[in-house]
Amino acid sequence: MNAMLSVMKGHRSIRKFKEIELEDKLVKKILEAAQYASTSNFIQACTVIRVNNQETRAEIADLAGPQPWVAQCPLFLVFCADLKRAEQACSMHKVEMVKGFTEQFIIATVDVALVAQNTMLAAESLGLGGVYIGGIRNNPEKVCELLDIPDMVYPVFGMCLGFPDEDPGRKPRLPLELVLKTDTYSDTCDDTLLSAYDQTCCDYYNHRDCANRDDNWTQQIARMMSQPLRPHMLDFLNSKSFLLK
Amino acid sequence: MNAMLSVMKGHRSIRKFKEIELEDKLVKKILEAAQYASTSNFIQACTVIRVNNQETRAEIADLAGPQPWVAQCPLFLVFCADLKRAEQACSMHKVEMVKGFTEQFIIATVDVALVAQNTMLAAESLGLGGVYIGGIRNNPEKVCELLDIPDMVYPVFGMCLGFPDEDPGRKPRLPLELVLKTDTYSDTCDDTLLSAYDQTCCDYYNHRDCANRDDNWTQQIARMMSQPLRPHMLDFLNSKSFLLK
Repeated sequence: MNAMLSVMKGHRSIRKFKEIELEDKLVKKILEAAQYASTSNFIQACTVIRVNNQETRAEIADLAGPQPWVAQCPLFLVFCADLKRAEQACSMHKVEMVKGFTEQFIIATVDVALVAQNTMLAAESLGLGGVYIGGIRNNPEKVCELLDIPDMVYPVFGMCLGFPDEDPGRKPRLPLELVLKTDTYSDTCDDTLLSAYDQTCCDYYNHRDCANRDDNWTQQIARMMSQPLRPHMLDFLNSKSFLLK
Repeated sequence: MNAMLSVMKGHRSIRKFKEIELEDKLVKKILEAAQYASTSNFIQACTVIRVNNQETRAEIADLAGPQPWVAQCPLFLVFCADLKRAEQACSMHKVEMVKGFTEQFIIATVDVALVAQNTMLAAESLGLGGVYIGGIRNNPEKVCELLDIPDMVYPVFGMCLGFPDEDPGRKPRLPLELVLKTDTYSDTCDDTLLSAYDQTCCDYYNHRDCANRDDNWTQQIARMMSQPLRPHMLDFLNSKSFLLK
């Protein structure tokens, strides 16, 4: 297995970090590599806000959960889907941008995710670890207010990075037979595979070093999906000129 | 620079491939590593359809552009955002899934993008190259029909992979000063930076080995964003039970 695959397969979410600051040079090195991710029609719709201000961090940590590692980690980044630069390009060439298409939202959101995954892997390859913070979408309006995020830009997720000070287990993934299909979607044998995977997860949760619990994958997902999930998102995105049509 | 950063910074879209088949073992190796991407609340909302059927490939190649490399590449994958497995988990535990939240759409779309970017990088680290095919969203209904994609699942993009048979230039990215901000969004000096970047792109397009053209970044983006982009997407996604609320 080459170095890339080892880093990928070694991924765990890291939430506890050594108190070692990350040099600007290192942060730059990571993001300059991350920027080379594919981008739809070359639009490069990703903007990253590095949050140093400790008061802002504390507020985001709080509204995201609370998730105290947002305040404690050496490096906290907010990844934004950014169509404002595209709007600027339009105005430089005196054409009007057609706003609000769902397709633009997909393009921008995917662009951000590709850069972010590059960021995570680049960081991990340099010995760092981290965790995505979807919790910033608990209160995206407040996040926009704290970070002065304008119209046509929305914060997709945050990311905590630093040198790991914990060594959590590696969560087993769904069996590849469930995830990789050939020629058509077909889900004929999923129930059996899901039950077997539930057992794998159950064993993992029971035997890992910390935070043991009696749980499995379908239970966990059923709990998550049987309640409204951040029901404010559509209105919020509309208010930022996304998803209008 | 370590191996990971070199692979990342070496990314170019590859559309011409050697006629070398990819062994199943290799495909499996790539996707098993890719699956270890972060996933929101462990939902693992990504399903990948490997399309071998040549008639299906030809139809998708056609509707995606045409983009003939979709039919010609050794490996063509369609990455789907999949909440059907989550629905199955709900039904196994006799709870009703609350459908249609925009947040669920974001979670699933981001999950897919993270696995896909791992796939691209894993492949590149093994000497392969490839290109994302957003063009499958030109006619997502037809793609769903061809691949039997059910409700609660949507095809986000395709990906062509294989051993490269071309050596295109590496497109310059936006300057990091534009993309990485500190503490607030602030875009005070963007116009100057954008103009300088336009010059960089213009030089690139004029001097690269093939397909030279007189163009720059803001021109290109202004053309793209001043016209309706896949205006059918919202209706299509609604029809698949996404983005309803």
